[in-house]
Amino acid sequence: MIIVMKYGASEAQIQSVVNKIHQSGLKEHLSRGAELTIIGVIGDEEHLEPSRFAILPGVERVNRVAKQYKIVSRSTHPSGTIIKVRGVEIGGPQIQVIAGSYAAESAQQMDLTADAVAAASCRLMRSGSFGAHPAAQHREALGLLRNAAARHQLPIVAELPDVRMLDTFMEFDVEIIQIGERNMQNMDLLREVGRINKPIILKRGVSATIVEWLMAAESIAAGGNHNIIFCEHGIRTFETAYRNVLDVSAIAVLKQETHLPVVVDPSDAGGKSWMVPALAQAAIAAGADGVLLDVHPNPSEARYAADQALSPQALLDMLAALKPLAVALGRSL
Amino acid sequence: MIIVMKYGASEAQIQSVVNKIHQSGLKEHLSRGAELTIIGVIGDEEHLEPSRFAILPGVERVNRVAKQYKIVSRSTHPSGTIIKVRGVEIGGPQIQVIAGSYAAESAQQMDLTADAVAAASCRLMRSGSFGAHPAAQHREALGLLRNAAARHQLPIVAELPDVRMLDTFMEFDVEIIQIGERNMQNMDLLREVGRINKPIILKRGVSATIVEWLMAAESIAAGGNHNIIFCEHGIRTFETAYRNVLDVSAIAVLKQETHLPVVVDPSDAGGKSWMVPALAQAAIAAGADGVLLDVHPNPSEARYAADQALSPQALLDMLAALKPLAVALGRSL
Amino acid sequence: MIIVMKYGASEAQIQSVVNKIHQSGLKEHLSRGAELTIIGVIGDEEHLEPSRFAILPGVERVNRVAKQYKIVSRSTHPSGTIIKVRGVEIGGPQIQVIAGSYAAESAQQMDLTADAVAAASCRLMRSGSFGAHPAAQHREALGLLRNAAARHQLPIVAELPDVRMLDTFMEFDVEIIQIGERNMQNMDLLREVGRINKPIILKRGVSATIVEWLMAAESIAAGGNHNIIFCEHGIRTFETAYRNVLDVSAIAVLKQETHLPVVVDPSDAGGKSWMVPALAQAAIAAGADGVLLDVHPNPSEARYAADQALSPQALLDMLAALKPLAVALGRSL
Amino acid sequence: MIIVMKYGASEAQIQSVVNKIHQSGLKEHLSRGAELTIIGVIGDEEHLEPSRFAILPGVERVNRVAKQYKIVSRSTHPSGTIIKVRGVEIGGPQIQVIAGSYAAESAQQMDLTADAVAAASCRLMRSGSFGAHPAAQHREALGLLRNAAARHQLPIVAELPDVRMLDTFMEFDVEIIQIGERNMQNMDLLREVGRINKPIILKRGVSATIVEWLMAAESIAAGGNHNIIFCEHGIRTFETAYRNVLDVSAIAVLKQETHLPVVVDPSDAGGKSWMVPALAQAAIAAGADGVLLDVHPNPSEARYAADQALSPQALLDMLAALKPLAVALGRSL
Repeated sequence: MIIVMKYGASEAQIQSVVNKIHQSGLKEHLSRGAELTIIGVIGDEEHLEPSRFAILPGVERVNRVAKQYKIVSRSTHPSGTIIKVRGVEIGGPQIQVIAGSYAAESAQQMDLTADAVAAASCRLMRSGSFGAHPAAQHREALGLLRNAAARHQLPIVAELPDVRMLDTFMEFDVEIIQIGERNMQNMDLLREVGRINKPIILKRGVSATIVEWLMAAESIAAGGNHNIIFCEHGIRTFETAYRNVLDVSAIAVLKQETHLPVVVDPSDAGGKSWMVPALAQAAIAAGADGVLLDVHPNPSEARYAADQALSPQALLDMLAALKPLAVALGRSL
Repeated sequence: MIIVMKYGASEAQIQSVVNKIHQSGLKEHLSRGAELTIIGVIGDEEHLEPSRFAILPGVERVNRVAKQYKIVSRSTHPSGTIIKVRGVEIGGPQIQVIAGSYAAESAQQMDLTADAVAAASCRLMRSGSFGAHPAAQHREALGLLRNAAARHQLPIVAELPDVRMLDTFMEFDVEIIQIGERNMQNMDLLREVGRINKPIILKRGVSATIVEWLMAAESIAAGGNHNIIFCEHGIRTFETAYRNVLDVSAIAVLKQETHLPVVVDPSDAGGKSWMVPALAQAAIAAGADGVLLDVHPNPSEARYAADQALSPQALLDMLAALKPLAVALGRSL
Repeated sequence: MIIVMKYGASEAQIQSVVNKIHQSGLKEHLSRGAELTIIGVIGDEEHLEPSRFAILPGVERVNRVAKQYKIVSRSTHPSGTIIKVRGVEIGGPQIQVIAGSYAAESAQQMDLTADAVAAASCRLMRSGSFGAHPAAQHREALGLLRNAAARHQLPIVAELPDVRMLDTFMEFDVEIIQIGERNMQNMDLLREVGRINKPIILKRGVSATIVEWLMAAESIAAGGNHNIIFCEHGIRTFETAYRNVLDVSAIAVLKQETHLPVVVDPSDAGGKSWMVPALAQAAIAAGADGVLLDVHPNPSEARYAADQALSPQALLDMLAALKPLAVALGRSL
Repeated sequence: MIIVMKYGASEAQIQSVVNKIHQSGLKEHLSRGAELTIIGVIGDEEHLEPSRFAILPGVERVNRVAKQYKIVSRSTHPSGTIIKVRGVEIGGPQIQVIAGSYAAESAQQMDLTADAVAAASCRLMRSGSFGAHPAAQHREALGLLRNAAARHQLPIVAELPDVRMLDTFMEFDVEIIQIGERNMQNMDLLREVGRINKPIILKRGVSATIVEWLMAAESIAAGGNHNIIFCEHGIRTFETAYRNVLDVSAIAVLKQETHLPVVVDPSDAGGKSWMVPALAQAAIAAGADGVLLDVHPNPSEARYAADQALSPQALLDMLAALKPLAVALGRSL
């Protein structure tokens, strides 16, 4: 931790900061410049609360130096992690396309969706969001997803809306549990999924910084579950021509900062089906390990988010274009 | 709902939109301009999903016209609503200062905080966030808050972290239940607090638009609980000189759009105790009905968010300055 | 233009809006719903100022319907435009890499840069920004760029810092004139470059919406110069892990909204040389027609923006990876 | 400057950073923690370019410690600066209201505006923006402003659109020169107004950080002109209910960081006349030294920005409400 003193801070103020460092059982390292005094804190700064120093008289600002995420950091784990789900690898050379409908509307709609997903050779099926269903119907929606996917032996990805549903998810043996963007910093939920043995897709909050996202992953990992997949699905800005801006720069940053896989949800990001192919291509080209896609057997009749769903044919066309791109990048689809 | 067709949209495309309107049991209203055709949808558009029209060929865009919030809207309820809590009025001429510590650290710290709150003549005591406590400790924290407040007959405001805690909150008879910013769009939680008979403080998500916020309030109100207080506590932008920008413009918009009271949390917004007086003054001058403040008996020893807590003396000083301001605005403190 | 009246607007208020429409020589189209009245304005709405209606009593809001950009719109010009510069095509199947140093430091540095640009088979040479030079030195910097590029017969791209420099740019016969992000809405400058016969690269302001950007291009085009190339180079958000977020979604939107070419500046966007290859790949995969790159013969000695410059070797490596990607997308490099 | 090395950086990498510091004629200060090595640079770091260190192998990041603004900083000039314009003080106890029309439409409109400004006891007259006029008409607009203001002996504030207009501004003896938000980082313009002896109102760019804004002011001050007034007029965010969010938190930050006066433009910020009184009150309560207001003799006929202009009566009403507020804050109006 580095404490920058104000221009003209008094000797007593400096001493008071140093005393507080000593009280914490740590040691200081003083640099007195012509204009500024800087105090470095040496030792285990992890448990130091910077705000308790920031408030002291004469302190200009306090910066942490050490990163607060360790388990998920590439510094301590240089090679990339591959997460395996019933034989499907995420984070390896093969790019994964995880497709499915935003909402479970009926058995027939889910079956047709599963048919489309399998026909496009996708290896995982998702449902977009259980936010679309009242709590009472989550269980039913999960059943529809499981049944539809089972017809094609597809492992499933489903969003855990609430910690109370975790038992149900375990009972249905959901292969990958998704944490939605609004739960990205729900500490109780992160703690609970950190104790189980299932891969987690952690969606980024629409206004979460990359560091906050890495720290959310660290909170899961701290419980023992290191099978975490980051999912970028757009951040909120001033632009209104699409829902959120797909942050491809974050993919590049994550690939450097963490050893864990990164996937992207271009359907949610742009909120328009016609944008999905371009965004998916950009994501893969930037280094993403997979994409999550909204597919609906008949988009113009979808109950929710109709304008972001791909039709089965659009899915096929899009994957046909994605395949040579993956190969050009030294990967496969 | 207004559907704007693309430049050059064909007659068949227009007809197909009209047919879909008829299928929904509604009627259209066609305006053919020299360049553009616009289709208005007449009737109860509330249950129309715009995205199902946006996806049709030839459609440029679809805009809702009617607002999606009604119960909370000032259009249908022109006079302002006053919410009463054990004789304390929120939304009336008297401005309310709701003060307390961010975290419940110990009985002694909470008692000293309550003493400071009462000494400053505040009429309500809060705890900042139960996010600071693991779930297991919420109950204990609530007990500390209740006991400390009881010594001065202060009603309490506490944040409901999770729907599972609602029974505990009812048991402790928490006078005002706060919904934190990360739960602003947690539909299960909104539904549950919509069924009870307690005032709700609804914090704005750090990247939520005012319309999303009004719709979240509408979701509570739809359950029957109309005792909702909006709490602005800063939105996230590119600026890093403070935590979030306090959106005073939102206060002006809310005062026009809704009949419900609006309070502001300047401690959370700026994240720096030295900013709190200026921000609180700005909020009141912009029309806010109250402020939520972080106070700690000894800020430099606070376990969390030390740099945003006011000392008891700073609270007194600040309220002394706020009082004439309130009077100049035709209100009282 | 569509005027939405407030809930409960009086008949007199409606009539007063209609009167004002008539005064403008246009006709109205009234839709009276159960709750809301909507007034469409028919005819040439281009010269109507919406704010003059928005201020009338009883008006809720006013929305333009027609787009304000026409010449640059794909609606009226469905096929893509290819811009030719001394035999080099921008907007065609071939992707263009426009490379050069951010600042002109010396003849030797510029010559080495030109050598690197030519060695990598780039067909155009740029200088990053004349913002790095005081006005008095712009002429000198331009001379260094022209001389260095001439040794390899490379056409040049240079940023016009100020309308007063336009004569100098014409004198040096700069092949492509770049408008920097801070001048994107400098109407005098746009008007002047609209009168000349040179391709213009129009950089997006870091907080400009896509519509504002299209309208800036329309302002150039209105003067007769339709040779406009959009350059996306990142928008400002709350994220601080990189300079600006590269908005690949904007590429998809532009490709639909305008017939003009789109290029991307990944060096400026991310502000880190190690990010450039990933961002350039993402941009091309999203549909961009080219990239602008910062190259320096010796980045760690660059006078400005050292951390975003590629070394000559890094440029070669990056283009080697970009080539198969272009081919996979049905293009060439 | 502080250089944080990567986790696991080699001794050779550390040495290479140290060598580069020595080459710059400065000295280093090494702190080797258990996990991280931090290198402080001691001496005059002003001329060090951090990016040249950031690019070195093994470097995690580089942070400046010293602020880059000095002349405008309150550190070196603790008491507030009062700027005097023909007897009117800006930055003192008296709050200044600077009012006028956005555009100069005609002599009559400007005369009526000046009458309204004088009738409301404002001491300075402005024109909102010369962006509303083509360059050729700036001179004429300035003449209309000067003539209208002269009838009431009001000093004038006008926006300098372009460095070429500076001579005209000097000729018309414009008392306060405004730099518009798009020119906030126009270095040529800042340099030129730094050489003259007129107060400058420096508007903040809609996406400029406070530090960038302070550095722009420093660029003016470096030329010798220290008569600078900051003008906050809203920053761009995701919210669309108003034009830009008025950043009252920035007022609090500026009051701490700089000794120079701060004014606010609530008309431009919100873009709606009905918001202006609430925003102006918030600004004054947060510590602003004045407000800039749009006034038009007949807003619904204004050629531009009709919905943000106050009528003469609305101006009177608003100032009547502002007066007791100023007094409550220990100031006058």
